[in-house]
This record gives sequence, C-alpha cells and structure tokens, in this order.
Amino acid sequence: MHQTQRQQTADLLKARGLDCALFAFRESVTWLTGFAPPVQTGPNLFSGGPALVWYAGGHFWLIVQDVYADLAAPFAQEADGTLITYATYTIEQPILSVDHLAAALRPLVQDMRSAPRVGVELDWLTARLHRTLTEAAASVEIVPVDGWLAPLRLIKTGEELALLRRNFALCDIGQAAARAATYAGQREIDVWAAAQAAINGAAGCRVPLGNDCVVGYRSPNNIGGWPLDYTIRASDSLIVDLSVVAGGYWSDGCGTYYAGEPTPRQQAIHQVARAALEFGIEQVRPGIAARELDRRIRAFIEQAGYPVYPHHTGHGVGASGHEAPRIVPYNDETLQAGMVIMLEPGIYYPGETGVRLEHGLLVTPDGAEVLTQHDTGW
Amino acid sequence: MHQTQRQQTADLLKARGLDCALFAFRESVTWLTGFAPPVQTGPNLFSGGPALVWYAGGHFWLIVQDVYADLAAPFAQEADGTLITYATYTIEQPILSVDHLAAALRPLVQDMRSAPRVGVELDWLTARLHRTLTEAAASVEIVPVDGWLAPLRLIKTGEELALLRRNFALCDIGQAAARAATYAGQREIDVWAAAQAAINGAAGCRVPLGNDCVVGYRSPNNIGGWPLDYTIRASDSLIVDLSVVAGGYWSDGCGTYYAGEPTPRQQAIHQVARAALEFGIEQVRPGIAARELDRRIRAFIEQAGYPVYPHHTGHGVGASGHEAPRIVPYNDETLQAGMVIMLEPGIYYPGETGVRLEHGLLVTPDGAEVLTQHDTGW
Repeated sequence: MHQTQRQQTADLLKARGLDCALFAFRESVTWLTGFAPPVQTGPNLFSGGPALVWYAGGHFWLIVQDVYADLAAPFAQEADGTLITYATYTIEQPILSVDHLAAALRPLVQDMRSAPRVGVELDWLTARLHRTLTEAAASVEIVPVDGWLAPLRLIKTGEELALLRRNFALCDIGQAAARAATYAGQREIDVWAAAQAAINGAAGCRVPLGNDCVVGYRSPNNIGGWPLDYTIRASDSLIVDLSVVAGGYWSDGCGTYYAGEPTPRQQAIHQVARAALEFGIEQVRPGIAARELDRRIRAFIEQAGYPVYPHHTGHGVGASGHEAPRIVPYNDETLQAGMVIMLEPGIYYPGETGVRLEHGLLVTPDGAEVLTQHDTGW
Repeated sequence: MHQTQRQQTADLLKARGLDCALFAFRESVTWLTGFAPPVQTGPNLFSGGPALVWYAGGHFWLIVQDVYADLAAPFAQEADGTLITYATYTIEQPILSVDHLAAALRPLVQDMRSAPRVGVELDWLTARLHRTLTEAAASVEIVPVDGWLAPLRLIKTGEELALLRRNFALCDIGQAAARAATYAGQREIDVWAAAQAAINGAAGCRVPLGNDCVVGYRSPNNIGGWPLDYTIRASDSLIVDLSVVAGGYWSDGCGTYYAGEPTPRQQAIHQVARAALEFGIEQVRPGIAARELDRRIRAFIEQAGYPVYPHHTGHGVGASGHEAPRIVPYNDETLQAGMVIMLEPGIYYPGETGVRLEHGLLVTPDGAEVLTQHDTGW
C-alpha cells in the first residue's frame, strides 16, 4: 500500500540530493505508509512522540508504539518498508516511551554510511528526537523538508480514492441522520449525536467526526462551530458540516436543514447557495485556476444580490481535511485530473440565519465527478 | 484559575535556579492555565504547533492560535498571565501558522534580560520552535524540564476536583446508557454509540470519549480495545471502560454488562472482581504505598482462586487519563490526601468472557471518597 507515494518521495529526495530523511508530520506519515493512529482523545498517553518515517537509500522504516503493531502491520508486508515498534505501556517499570522511541531511531541514523545531508520535517519533529538525530550523526547537515510532500499529495491514487469514497459515503449517512433529527426543540448537540451514532454504526467502529453544527441565530458567528446546547426553533436553519476521518483519510460535506418550513428569506438564500454550488461544479475541469473558480462562485452569489461568504470557496481533501489546492482568491494553482476538492458556498445573516452547501468532487479529464450524495435541498 | 499551579511551578523553577521556562507538553499547558484545545479530530489543521506556555520572572504567557482566543480568554484575566494569539486561518494568503507561532515566541525569548539557563520541555517542543529559541538567545543553556511538573500534579486543587467530579458524573451517565443498550444482537459499536450520545447530550457539547468496549469472546485480547462490529450474544459479557475528557481533564470508570442472565462462571468472577474492588477501596488511605495497594488487590483475586489481571491495578487521573501515582507492583510512592486515583481489578478468560470494574476515588485524610456512582453489579 502507498507504494506510489513512497516512490514519488524517493525520486523527489534523490532529485534534491538527499539520501536520507526523517518525516514526523502526521499527514506525511499517513500518506507515506497508510498508517494512522487513533486521535479521538488526543495522542496516545503512552506514545512518547509522533509516529516517524525514516528513509534511507530507497527504503522506508515506520516507527510506531507497540500497541499499534496490528494497525501498522500491512506496511510491514511491503518490500520497501520495515516496521519498527517500541515499548510503551508496562506495569514492570515506569513509562519510558520517549527513551524507547529515541532508542528505536538511533541505530537507523547511525547506519547512515556517509550521508552528509538529511531531510527533516522540523516543524513537527520533537526537539528531543532532533537531539537524538544530531547526537547520533554529529556531522550531519539538516535540511528542512516541511511542505515538500504537499505537491505530491495533490493527485490521489486509486487506493486513496477508495478510502475517500468510503468516507464520503459515511458523511452522507451522517447528513441523512442529521436531516431526520432536525426539528423544533432539538438542540445542536442532539442532532450531532444522531449523526455521530449513525456514522459510527455504519462504520462498525469509532471514527473521528468534525466540524460544525450551528443554528442560524448563533451570533456573532453562525458560520461554523462545535455543536452546543442551543435549541432549534421552528423558524431556524441548522448548518451541518461533517468530516469523517477514517483510515487516516478525511472527507467532508455540508447540508443545511430546517426545523419547519423555511422562511421566504431562507428559501431564497438556500436556492441561491444551491445554484452557486451547481454552477461551481460545472466550472470544474483541469486547467482552471483555483483563484478563477473562487472568483466565479463568489461573483455568482454577488450578482444574485446576496452577501458573499467570508471563508474559502473550497479546498483539497485527503490525508488532511484541508489541503492543496485551496480554492481561495490568491491561489494560482490550476486544477488537475485526479485532485479531490470540496466546494462550499454559503450565505449568512449573522444572528438570524444562514446556509452552506458543500459537495466533494473528483476532478476528471473533462469535468468533475460528485463524490458526496447527500441531499442539498431543504 | 490554576493560580496555585503556577505559583507552585514558579517556586519550583526558582528553587532549581531557573528564571525562564518554556512548556510544550499539552498536560503541562492545561495544568498551568486551564486551557485545553479540542482534540476530537487530531490537532487543529491550522495550528502550526502545540499551545505553549512561556514563563519569565514570575509571569506566564499562554500562546494559542487565534481561533482559540475565546477558549483561552479566562486565562487572560489572570494577574500573573498574558494571552498571546497568533494568526492561522486566512483566505488572503497561504497558511503560515508555523511562522506566526515562532514569531509570537521570539520577542518573549529576546526579552530575557540575562537568563543564562532556560527550562524547556524538549520531549514535546517542536524542533522548529527549539531553533527559534536558540536563535533568539544564542548563548542560552537549555535545561530539560520534562516530567518536572508531574509531582506537583499529584494533589488536586478544588478547581480540578470540581472538573473531575463533573466528568465522573458524565462517565456515570455513559455507563447507565451502555448498560441499557447491552442486549443480544447489539454490536459493541452500538453500545458505544448509545453511551456517547447520552454523554454528549448531557454535556451539551462534544466531549472526547475513550477507552474500551469489548465483548468477552474477543481473542486474544478481551481486556481492552475500541468498539468494533462484534455482535453481542445472549451469553456474552461486555466490558465498557469510559473516559470522558472535558475542560482538559479526564475521568474514568468501567462496568461489565451482560446480554442475558450471566453464566455461573460470569457470576462468580463478577462477584470476585466486585469484592476485590470494594476491598481495594477499603485499603485506600494516606500513607499506603502504591505497590502495597496493588499487591493486596492482586492477592485478593489470587486467593479467591482466579487468574490475576495483567494490567495495572489503577492510576492517577487529572490533566491526563493515566498519571501518577501508578498503582503497579514497582511503585514506592505513597498515597496522600487530595490524590484522585482509579482502581480497576479484572478477571479474564481470553476468548470466552471477562470482567473489569472500576471506580474513581478521592484520597481523604482517613480513607477514600468514591467519585464514580455507576452500578457495578451485573
């Protein structure tokens, strides 16, 4: 799994004169290996640091804590990969995970024959492990490689697409559950809980769930936020923006639901937002600049006479919930076939009501395939 | 809030000759400031690094990303505290959070008058920020302070106890929901979803939820694990170990439930585990060594003729779900009034059935107050 990603990375490092590299950013680790640790309650209490990927001479080592050995086992089957686990939880002695992780890394660094330069993700490696690295190879020159993998992650592989499709389907299930649970007297958190239960039940396991579940009258920000105990009234809109994270890959999707018959203003802005989204989807094709796609969708809403949303028009999605290409006013990147992007126009009247509708799209050679199937009507 | 913690920390640093320190471990940051970022879907995608606490000359600075300004606002009211936020999400330019975080830290370091030594949590600070630190103060000597705060965290303050009590009450609600949802044909994940919905509904917001929900016949490990789609049969036990994390503080509790009338073996081991827990609670008082408490509870089960559990007997709980004092065979630490600990004896027959029962306790001057109220019967 993820062999394509590793080959691209090896090629990139070679082209830039690096024989060795150390990756510590969780997105890099997942993208390179397929391994993704659970995150629901924060980092594992016994971890001692992030999972690492060490690269040397065409081979990749994944270093994870022992309790994740099963989760990382598929990587160990790869011809170009070796799995290393380090001891964490024990009742026989104090928890020394940080030492054990450093000890797992040290011999790999010492095995470098004569690499004068090592690429390192300095933004996410811990200072402790950086010290391990420099102590194990005192004369090494460290080259920051933060962000180097981002351009490689733009085009999704078939493996990644399969994961994303599964996760988008889980988002759809959550959207249907949220729609059914939206009625007067429910609270934001009740709708969220219904969506979460439906998604976990369909997945057959716990999956992390983002993003927003906000009633229209929330002020000053009715655009996004975690569900709270705001009660939904008959005249209210509810924006439900869900990201399911499973297998280390994200997904996304947003619907807007109503406790009763939407008011005339709600109907009007919902229709315009939906038309803007449909219009945006029609604009998607290889070669269009992200900034131009952003501009066209904003202009659609402005020309309809409504206030333009203050957030991005969209973004890529993959090993992160928000990655390149950003669909924003400054971005000159052009869309390419194989990218997976979200589009999410919205119209908001702070303190009163709001609407946002979002679909996920695969950029195809001649347009876009819509990956989310949820109903964006009211 | 958390003024006691900061005073203790300032005293400790002064006693060890340090005028300045940088804390990057999330448990340290929460314990020092009360600030705790959401974790449900991993670190915020725009964070650029962990929240930091800088200490210099009796004053504390908390550095968090701008979207958490409201969440961190109470700290900004403190006489000994200053809140600093750095820019993250924008649609006007690329996300440069790492640079902005480093830029927020730099002037604080440069303001050090003549501190030759700075305490740093090297195990969790990023290498990038470590570089910021050493570049801003080239002649500084860095003293690792990882683990220094752990002994200070042993005795809970009134503020911490209030948080823990609230979270234990949420655990109890989850346990009651799990018990009600345990019947033949349900899956582990269905029971989990019911508990999670009940907890979120009662909390009025999303709260991270750990730990285990495993049917007795899971093999080779029926002790713990994330809920999956194993179906519960009429003869099965289900171990439900829940940790609610809210306000940066944890909680814990475990019950074991049955889809039907427990079998004679299940009844026998449930009774012994429950008696062992009750026996253990009676042993708790200031002055008893953790290792002795551990030994007595294991001996209770062994003398009853059952296999002794392979895990810890218990552990402290606070800004982490598993902290000092560990109730394990090697630990010479003695219990003190004001500690909050878990006790969780279990009996397991791998691949067949198992039981674990757990209560949370406040160590009092003459014994223990039980903080969890869930029903540990079957």
